[in-house]
Amino acid sequence: MALIVQKFGGTSVGNPDRIKNVARRVAEYRQRGDQVVVVVSAMSGVTDNLIKLAKEIMPLPSEREMDMLLATGEQTTIALTAMALHAINLPAISLTGAQAGITTDGIHTKAKIQNITPKEVHAMLDAGNVVIVAGFQGQTQSGQITTLGRGGSDLTAIALAAALKADLCQIYTDVDGVYTADPRIVPGARKLDEISYDEMLELASSGAKVMQSRSVEFAKKFGVVFEVRSSLNDNPGTIVREEAKSMEDVVIRGVALDKNQAKVTLAEVPDKPGEAARIFKALADVSINVDMIVQTASHGGGAKATDISFTIDKADLLKAQKTLAAIKAQVGFREVISDEKIGKLSIVGVGMRSHSGVAARMFETLATEGVNIDMISTSEIKISVVIDLAKGESAMKAVHAAFLG
Amino acid sequence: MALIVQKFGGTSVGNPDRIKNVARRVAEYRQRGDQVVVVVSAMSGVTDNLIKLAKEIMPLPSEREMDMLLATGEQTTIALTAMALHAINLPAISLTGAQAGITTDGIHTKAKIQNITPKEVHAMLDAGNVVIVAGFQGQTQSGQITTLGRGGSDLTAIALAAALKADLCQIYTDVDGVYTADPRIVPGARKLDEISYDEMLELASSGAKVMQSRSVEFAKKFGVVFEVRSSLNDNPGTIVREEAKSMEDVVIRGVALDKNQAKVTLAEVPDKPGEAARIFKALADVSINVDMIVQTASHGGGAKATDISFTIDKADLLKAQKTLAAIKAQVGFREVISDEKIGKLSIVGVGMRSHSGVAARMFETLATEGVNIDMISTSEIKISVVIDLAKGESAMKAVHAAFLG
Repeated sequence: MALIVQKFGGTSVGNPDRIKNVARRVAEYRQRGDQVVVVVSAMSGVTDNLIKLAKEIMPLPSEREMDMLLATGEQTTIALTAMALHAINLPAISLTGAQAGITTDGIHTKAKIQNITPKEVHAMLDAGNVVIVAGFQGQTQSGQITTLGRGGSDLTAIALAAALKADLCQIYTDVDGVYTADPRIVPGARKLDEISYDEMLELASSGAKVMQSRSVEFAKKFGVVFEVRSSLNDNPGTIVREEAKSMEDVVIRGVALDKNQAKVTLAEVPDKPGEAARIFKALADVSINVDMIVQTASHGGGAKATDISFTIDKADLLKAQKTLAAIKAQVGFREVISDEKIGKLSIVGVGMRSHSGVAARMFETLATEGVNIDMISTSEIKISVVIDLAKGESAMKAVHAAFLG
Repeated sequence: MALIVQKFGGTSVGNPDRIKNVARRVAEYRQRGDQVVVVVSAMSGVTDNLIKLAKEIMPLPSEREMDMLLATGEQTTIALTAMALHAINLPAISLTGAQAGITTDGIHTKAKIQNITPKEVHAMLDAGNVVIVAGFQGQTQSGQITTLGRGGSDLTAIALAAALKADLCQIYTDVDGVYTADPRIVPGARKLDEISYDEMLELASSGAKVMQSRSVEFAKKFGVVFEVRSSLNDNPGTIVREEAKSMEDVVIRGVALDKNQAKVTLAEVPDKPGEAARIFKALADVSINVDMIVQTASHGGGAKATDISFTIDKADLLKAQKTLAAIKAQVGFREVISDEKIGKLSIVGVGMRSHSGVAARMFETLATEGVNIDMISTSEIKISVVIDLAKGESAMKAVHAAFLG
């Protein structure tokens, strides 16, 4: 008898029929003797409707009240899911995040889980129930309702799996698992049987949209093995777990293309200590995440100066331009040049550590395709290059073919 | 500085604009220095939609899960109402029933309030907030979410007013107050300035749909003075309070017509001890509320027999017929005769106690109108008659004119 945590997202519980499907899937596991904890999101569309209602009342609603409002979305789903299990004669009980013992800090709309005391979950499981827990939400020690922010329901599932010492945590979604590349762009992309936490994290930060990084980080920290799989079929998914020796046999696990970055270049930044710090502190102060940073060698001649280029989310570009304009005189660079027509192409794999020549092979492949490399950044298990957005998809296909074809 | 509890029903918070109106009204009281606790229902239509969703999943959903589901309706409204107050720069905070300290028994979908510990409400009021509390809901001592059943939000408001020792409790609704009769039927009906708890209770049980009896009973038990008034204008409403000597000057406070009753007659019930008990126990066992009961004098002749007539809710008629059919042989009556075409006309007033001839005047008035009286039942402050439904409204007008015209 295993204890399994299963998480179903908004699309999987999007209407009564889909909720009934979820119940049937849960029943399969329950009937073979497993204990099952189900974590559900709000039905798709519900959260957006609530946000719309709030905005009709106030453009920038209080975050505490947004949590009070949005928490109703998951609470609706847990009740309906419990009913769907009752309808097929399975004992089931729903619990809000608070009732499930999920305690968070008080940072409304993006609270962090501090502690899980799953006393009630255990008691209800022991009484023979499937336990349905509201994802995305918790409460503070003083009883305030909080939500966990984007990807919050995945986090609830993984954190609960850790607290319950579950045998398996399944993240049901609308794709079959984690792929070597986005199959909509690369027809030859294959589903992976397994992937390490670190590879999953690098893929997530490279534009692959399977899961939010923080859920994976949490799983890594607490050693929670989880499976990403489809709620639409019975195919086995992708197991995400601690790196194993065997994983290194594969040089590259996957290829990702991020089209949502913009490049900013500051031309002729005076080459003195503290200038870069001043620039990036100004950006950090307005909560802009900087991804890749490249500094060119100092220009020759009299007053030394360098060019500094970096990438940020396209959505932050306007804010970055304003921020940089405000410090231009102080820092003394010549101008800000922005480029939104870039793509960030990344290859990820723990096998890189033990295989040499990976970067060379990637650059050669791009050269053969006639793709110019604009910026390069590497980690131990990732190589990212910034290229022309127009050539992003063909470059991705070529790199996939070279390493994974 | 007074402490006021204001309750707004589903229509008053039916959309963002109406919620903004509620906020403006609350602000008026807040700005003159009063402390305000606001109790709100689910937005109109929301509860029905949730019930519809549940029924799509299961015809008869678990009551515990229905409470989990329906409690989201009020939770949505409290968050939006707090935002609407923020939008006009008033500090406000929302609390679920549980957070407001409302503890109930565990009878899901019709829980009774056992205790209110308004520690959090006091703390938030003292911090300068308008406190918005979700009506209709509470939690058990073990932390299960419960709902209070029909009229639950009124009950929340009155119970909170009692627990907080509020100076006034205002029940905002879509009518101007309690009327001498339904103005849609009796054009000359007048709004009452005041009415006693007992009169309000008798009117409620006579088909006047202003408030559920149990909220009024609760108010009576704890001496909570409340005002029923309109959320659509600033007219003063009707004050409901303990009977005062001055109230007896008015003979009749109001006239009510209940069109939702059915009459059942059991013909030739054997006239022996225990027969009536057996009949009404069978009905009670299937939760049918019997209102008026009339037993005719025993028929003459050999085996003595009487006719027993009683009235019940029309909605219960089919169930009553089945129940009676099942005990027919055992009890030995001849037949069951049902009549759905009846109206129950009632006059209510504490003044009846000190004025004689009230019944005679009512019966005379009906006789003049050519209305035949089918059943009669009286209490200390009420006289009800069952008459032909087709003559109900004209009879009501005539009686209103006779006593209140």
